[in-house]
Amino acid sequence: MAADTDTLDDLFDAHDLPGLERWVADHPPHEVADELARADGVRAALLFRLLDKDRALTVFEELDPPDQHKVLAELRGEAFRDVVEEMDPDDRARLLGEAPAKFARQVLAGLSPRKRSMTAALLGYPDGSVGRYMSPETVALRQRRTAGEALGVVRERGADAETVYTLPVTDDQRRFVGVVSLRDVVLSDPDRSVTELLKEDYPLVEATDQAEDAARLMQEANVLALPVVDSENRVLGLLTIDDAFEVIEAADTEDIARQAAAAPWSGHYMSASVVQLARSRVVWLLLLIVAATLTVNVLQFFEDSLTAVTALALFIPLLTGAGGNAGSQAATATVRALAVGEVRTRDLLRVAWRESRVGLLLGAALGAVGLMIGSVLVDVPVATTVALSLVVICSWAATVGATMPLLAKRLGIDPAVISAPLVTTLVDATGLLIYFVIAHAVLGV
Amino acid sequence: MAADTDTLDDLFDAHDLPGLERWVADHPPHEVADELARADGVRAALLFRLLDKDRALTVFEELDPPDQHKVLAELRGEAFRDVVEEMDPDDRARLLGEAPAKFARQVLAGLSPRKRSMTAALLGYPDGSVGRYMSPETVALRQRRTAGEALGVVRERGADAETVYTLPVTDDQRRFVGVVSLRDVVLSDPDRSVTELLKEDYPLVEATDQAEDAARLMQEANVLALPVVDSENRVLGLLTIDDAFEVIEAADTEDIARQAAAAPWSGHYMSASVVQLARSRVVWLLLLIVAATLTVNVLQFFEDSLTAVTALALFIPLLTGAGGNAGSQAATATVRALAVGEVRTRDLLRVAWRESRVGLLLGAALGAVGLMIGSVLVDVPVATTVALSLVVICSWAATVGATMPLLAKRLGIDPAVISAPLVTTLVDATGLLIYFVIAHAVLGV
Repeated sequence: MAADTDTLDDLFDAHDLPGLERWVADHPPHEVADELARADGVRAALLFRLLDKDRALTVFEELDPPDQHKVLAELRGEAFRDVVEEMDPDDRARLLGEAPAKFARQVLAGLSPRKRSMTAALLGYPDGSVGRYMSPETVALRQRRTAGEALGVVRERGADAETVYTLPVTDDQRRFVGVVSLRDVVLSDPDRSVTELLKEDYPLVEATDQAEDAARLMQEANVLALPVVDSENRVLGLLTIDDAFEVIEAADTEDIARQAAAAPWSGHYMSASVVQLARSRVVWLLLLIVAATLTVNVLQFFEDSLTAVTALALFIPLLTGAGGNAGSQAATATVRALAVGEVRTRDLLRVAWRESRVGLLLGAALGAVGLMIGSVLVDVPVATTVALSLVVICSWAATVGATMPLLAKRLGIDPAVISAPLVTTLVDATGLLIYFVIAHAVLGV
Repeated sequence: MAADTDTLDDLFDAHDLPGLERWVADHPPHEVADELARADGVRAALLFRLLDKDRALTVFEELDPPDQHKVLAELRGEAFRDVVEEMDPDDRARLLGEAPAKFARQVLAGLSPRKRSMTAALLGYPDGSVGRYMSPETVALRQRRTAGEALGVVRERGADAETVYTLPVTDDQRRFVGVVSLRDVVLSDPDRSVTELLKEDYPLVEATDQAEDAARLMQEANVLALPVVDSENRVLGLLTIDDAFEVIEAADTEDIARQAAAAPWSGHYMSASVVQLARSRVVWLLLLIVAATLTVNVLQFFEDSLTAVTALALFIPLLTGAGGNAGSQAATATVRALAVGEVRTRDLLRVAWRESRVGLLLGAALGAVGLMIGSVLVDVPVATTVALSLVVICSWAATVGATMPLLAKRLGIDPAVISAPLVTTLVDATGLLIYFVIAHAVLGV
């Protein structure tokens, strides 16, 4: 694969159009999509134009919205209209939701009336809601149908639907009563009623629910498609598993960025500019350095102790490092457990009690090592101070790190903003306080 | 939902069996599974026994292997055999792969010969490979069939298969030639040949490939099931999207744990013991505190400068903190980009060049703030030292943090072990070196 992209860059540099055409024809759509995502807009659009019409749509659908926008921004006339007309309504709504408003209006204006109203309806749901991701084109069945009739309905109307494997069933008022799977329809005796094939306990969501919650529900309940209804239980569409998969992966990527104190941004890492990357990281770094001023204050307060025993200064990075690490481990564990639903906010006290003991065990292990390092490099009294501080700091750091994400969630803040760097910074200042109080007790300074 | 679990705990405490029975009957399987995962073995098995047989299997399949094992360990006789016999072969193989060897042998011995050989075959594939996750029970079609005949084959043999929506097609030597979807089979004219419905560019994997790579391929290529073949291109099974979804989520959870310098462990956060949690975190903490001894050495080397200008000590946590944060951000970004395939190891130099400039921009912003903080709290010469150090340290930290995961991958090490705490610890020592060299230049100490 390494040779492939080198070739691709060479082909671009040599303006070798026939070579590029061969390259796109020889590679599967997801690999072509990957190269489009990495390339700048002009090269991406050039590659895209070399695809034949069917493959072009497949490749386009595999791009993330920012990369789709990058390609579309370079296309004109026919090519542009073809792509936008042929997209699935949910993909189109997501692209427009993330594109500049002027561009979105222009695209909407160019659509056929039916597609325009379908897309506009999806865009009416809040950002991040199920409505933005659902496929409105489903095959719904009336509950009085037989399995044989149901198969006929699928044959008649299935071509336009995004999926025909999960079929919502409705009553005479068009209200949702359950789903049947195409598998059961095909395997069943054709005369059996659809009602007999209904799946019990089947989960469903409303269009205004959070897409991430709906996606996690699908994963937990192991379903290929989740019915989406309005507040009166009428079927609006289906959330399909490939969209749920994307929602979860995007949510994980966002959480991971937040956990490192960076603002999440959509788009490909290699196509982001240096300024974009810096912008996504600078806000938290600035907040954290202002918070770190606390450590300067604590050290100023204990400056006399530092002057009396300079050796105390030697262990400052080691202690703040260990506390920060123990706190980060605990914070990361509870943020993830909250994200996948293993911990709930009301577990706060249980989590605090568990993690304080985990921290104590870790502190005891680190304290033993600290005692050795300190005794070898300085002397036993300082080493004792360092060792005792490690025990207290680790227990404190694990407790604070684990409970802060739960407190954040209780306050309605995304727990992932309780990043490892944030915990580290807060534990730094309190850790120093613990260190100097213990130094005062042990060394009398 | 809060009231629900409180009730559940109350019901357990009151030994209210009819109440518990009502509770499990009133909740959907994935919620019952969630409570089983959180509970200890005895309570989990008690709840499980209260489920009727069909629901019991659904609930059981929604548990992760460690939690399945927890429940099974408390079941005896009939109940045990029923559950193990009815599991899908891939789920059973995964459970046994993670269970103690003695338990696994016992379970295998109790199976019918056909199921035993199917499960043993899956267990023969390496841990983490596609073979462990694939469903061997598929409906394969010969390429000379018509769509109508294909539908007949699905009706005849579909009941035992895990999915019938993706149908592998083989030639006369039973070699894989492509797939058709049940949707195309149903919608097509019954007389058309299956060969005409074959999907082009359809991805496939070998059973010995890494399951995580296969799952990411499914996500990129947007397919519901991925054909799994042996080295001679014969169909062994299908990797279905619900299993792929689980593989990716487990991989993300593992990466997230590693990024916080903890060993990944499978199982539910709330059912892990304090000792288990401590064990998953202690190794890295110990390694990191030993590495942090370097910071003590660096400070000892510059002890004269510290004694001369005690104020230099005040900014040590602020500087190491800022460097650690900038390094963590960069490391987390490239670890994630590597995991989702946006960055490849041969991008090393491009990444280093980008991140050194990102770090320079961030360092300039932080340096300006550092200059202010230092001037207000101490004096301008020390503030200048701090500000210049921030610029150099941030650029250095971002470059080191971003490139280390790529280097690790090149050496065949999981890039996720380049955790934020590891980067922080390494940047601490080098950052202090930078600080004192700049102090020497600016302050002459």
